[in-house]
Amino acid sequence: MSDLSKCPPLTRKSVLDAHKRIEPYIHRTQVATCDTINLLASTPQSERCPSSGPNTASESAPHESTKNGSAAEYKANPKVRLFFKCENQQKIGAFKARGAFHALGRLIEEEGIENVRRKGVVTHSSGNHAQALALAAKTFEVPAHIVMPTISTPSKISGTKSHNAHVIFSGSTSDEREAVVAEVIEKTGATLVPPYDHPNIILGQGTQALELEQQVEDMLAEQPALGISGKTKLDAVIAPIGGGGMLSGICTALHGTGIKVFGAEPNFEGANDAELGLKQNKRIEKVKTLTIADGLRTPVGDIPWNIITDKEKLHGIYSVDESQIKAALRLAMERAKLFIEPSAAVPLAVMLYNEDFRKLVEREAGPEGWNIGIILSGGNTTVEAIAKLFQASGKVAERAESKITTNGERVAENVAG
Amino acid sequence: MSDLSKCPPLTRKSVLDAHKRIEPYIHRTQVATCDTINLLASTPQSERCPSSGPNTASESAPHESTKNGSAAEYKANPKVRLFFKCENQQKIGAFKARGAFHALGRLIEEEGIENVRRKGVVTHSSGNHAQALALAAKTFEVPAHIVMPTISTPSKISGTKSHNAHVIFSGSTSDEREAVVAEVIEKTGATLVPPYDHPNIILGQGTQALELEQQVEDMLAEQPALGISGKTKLDAVIAPIGGGGMLSGICTALHGTGIKVFGAEPNFEGANDAELGLKQNKRIEKVKTLTIADGLRTPVGDIPWNIITDKEKLHGIYSVDESQIKAALRLAMERAKLFIEPSAAVPLAVMLYNEDFRKLVEREAGPEGWNIGIILSGGNTTVEAIAKLFQASGKVAERAESKITTNGERVAENVAG
Repeated sequence: MSDLSKCPPLTRKSVLDAHKRIEPYIHRTQVATCDTINLLASTPQSERCPSSGPNTASESAPHESTKNGSAAEYKANPKVRLFFKCENQQKIGAFKARGAFHALGRLIEEEGIENVRRKGVVTHSSGNHAQALALAAKTFEVPAHIVMPTISTPSKISGTKSHNAHVIFSGSTSDEREAVVAEVIEKTGATLVPPYDHPNIILGQGTQALELEQQVEDMLAEQPALGISGKTKLDAVIAPIGGGGMLSGICTALHGTGIKVFGAEPNFEGANDAELGLKQNKRIEKVKTLTIADGLRTPVGDIPWNIITDKEKLHGIYSVDESQIKAALRLAMERAKLFIEPSAAVPLAVMLYNEDFRKLVEREAGPEGWNIGIILSGGNTTVEAIAKLFQASGKVAERAESKITTNGERVAENVAG
Repeated sequence: MSDLSKCPPLTRKSVLDAHKRIEPYIHRTQVATCDTINLLASTPQSERCPSSGPNTASESAPHESTKNGSAAEYKANPKVRLFFKCENQQKIGAFKARGAFHALGRLIEEEGIENVRRKGVVTHSSGNHAQALALAAKTFEVPAHIVMPTISTPSKISGTKSHNAHVIFSGSTSDEREAVVAEVIEKTGATLVPPYDHPNIILGQGTQALELEQQVEDMLAEQPALGISGKTKLDAVIAPIGGGGMLSGICTALHGTGIKVFGAEPNFEGANDAELGLKQNKRIEKVKTLTIADGLRTPVGDIPWNIITDKEKLHGIYSVDESQIKAALRLAMERAKLFIEPSAAVPLAVMLYNEDFRKLVEREAGPEGWNIGIILSGGNTTVEAIAKLFQASGKVAERAESKITTNGERVAENVAG
């Protein structure tokens, strides 16, 4: 990867430059709004009509984590309008395309296209970064070596291969993987492009915040009713944090704009390493969790950590449990009609279910309220995985069944002839 | 409902008028594109790499209906670029809001707001039309009586009630339902707003075609690479057909533009009544099917029939089987990241899997190819219903499981620290 000394500084200006560089290669993804979700988010949890939320009783009011106290407590009543940045519709189905195109573009500029084409690039990943780097490399006709664990699912392997990447298998531990990467580098001279812990990746990921900021201003200029009355721009953005490349990029992009940036994390089995790390003022370097938000199982990286610990850049990190993530995932699909992966539902879950966050918004935004950007980071999941998360059983199964076979209007219309 | 004699003529001009009338009340839904689906649609079925299609082997090549012959036959190779009109993101989650706002708006203009408010409106439905009329009525502060079968699912009932409609229960047969409607009319003087078989409904539903036509022209002007090289507009549109309100509205809207209109139907248990009716030159008045495309179980209505039998307005109707609908539904979700109901997947299924249609496109479009609009009619389904359609079992379950718990990149990153 590019020498750190040659990387541009981690400033908003550098993110603007990164955006100009990658714009021809990425989608300017849409920003969506949803009246029903705005209403739910602007209603205290205790007053929400179960019928306007999820259908499954057990999920209609995801249980509060104990620290939020009993249901009898005061429930926050923030007023918000939400703007969903649809990076699930980005190339390769996730924001990672931004960082990969930026990192490779910079590398080519520094070393020259002929050198980069001769040496190639390498990374270890079987997830979104693998496909993102494979796509960027294909675009610039650079060989890409992707080290993937043998246990990777066939669809991810073939997805990566479909961008002409050279897939090399390894064991799934860190040591096994790094040994294979070292071998590739020794043999080919390929440059390592890491998934998040590098300035050029961070600057690339930050570009989505610039688009979101501008798109919301444009939307509000045209249709003021979409936002908080009288406001012309975003007040805050919530983004997921795993390795932290995206969150630190967004912090960098929005620094100095007055738009507050928040991180959102799952808290299952300690996946909220960034939240916990901020509390103890020390980065947590190891995490072992099987949260359904599988893109956020990673501990935050070193360079992202240095950015998110700057209180001028990050306003706070909040976490949610698995049932809250599932409930938000359901709402994104059933109400906003957006197909997203569980990791992408985490910021919406924080907005809807984390009482600490909701109280902060109520307190800081006051009765006027906030326009809040919600990053939907990706949509790389399958209908089977969704089925697994929500599979019908018992009473729920019966109800789902009746929905499919006895839709009233339609049955009635059948016999109307 | 408005007297037929007072309705505007079924012309493009009337659809343009309808659009002006309803524009303040509806969403101008986005038009989406998807490179992967374009590639699949532009590849002969026999040559498609299973890995770029669905993951489940049994669905990777939905079986051909017998009339399409054996796999050894010539497979069509049309060249197309698809433009998805996202009516799944319309108000109430389906295009039906258009017809309801138009029909009610016309009624108010004819009878005066005070009369309509005094008498109210009534319909029988527990599906999208129920919620659409309830929303339109709420907007104009008109009482709405919605007759719903007692067997309706609780979420649909509460969805309708959430728009302040007066819900009245009935049995689910045509006779029982009509008896209740008659009772409501006698008691309140309410006007019946039928779901599809009325000119004002048809004209309202047609408005989506005007938007799609204009949006595609705008998109191609800005980004010509999204479409067929050198073309600046749509060549064709494929829309689902159930009762036919939407398809006949689109036929009316696009008449005289040169844009060809096609209908798409499920063929399970005779749900392809319009296709069969066109062949025997006689409307089929009764259908009894439990196709998963539950919005399309209805036989085509009388007024829509008179429009779609006009060869200058409709170019043809093509049908697909259940496995083809499921495969298209999967692609819309996993690849285009759009959450849609099974009925909305039927036009895409025709594009991808109906060999007769694909041969027609290859023949008529030639090597140059066509820009084709695909109507995604609605997104009112639940994660449980999707789970039911695709629930993991056997080997598929294992693979889905491994996807959730052993994502290579993420597990590897976990231990990387």
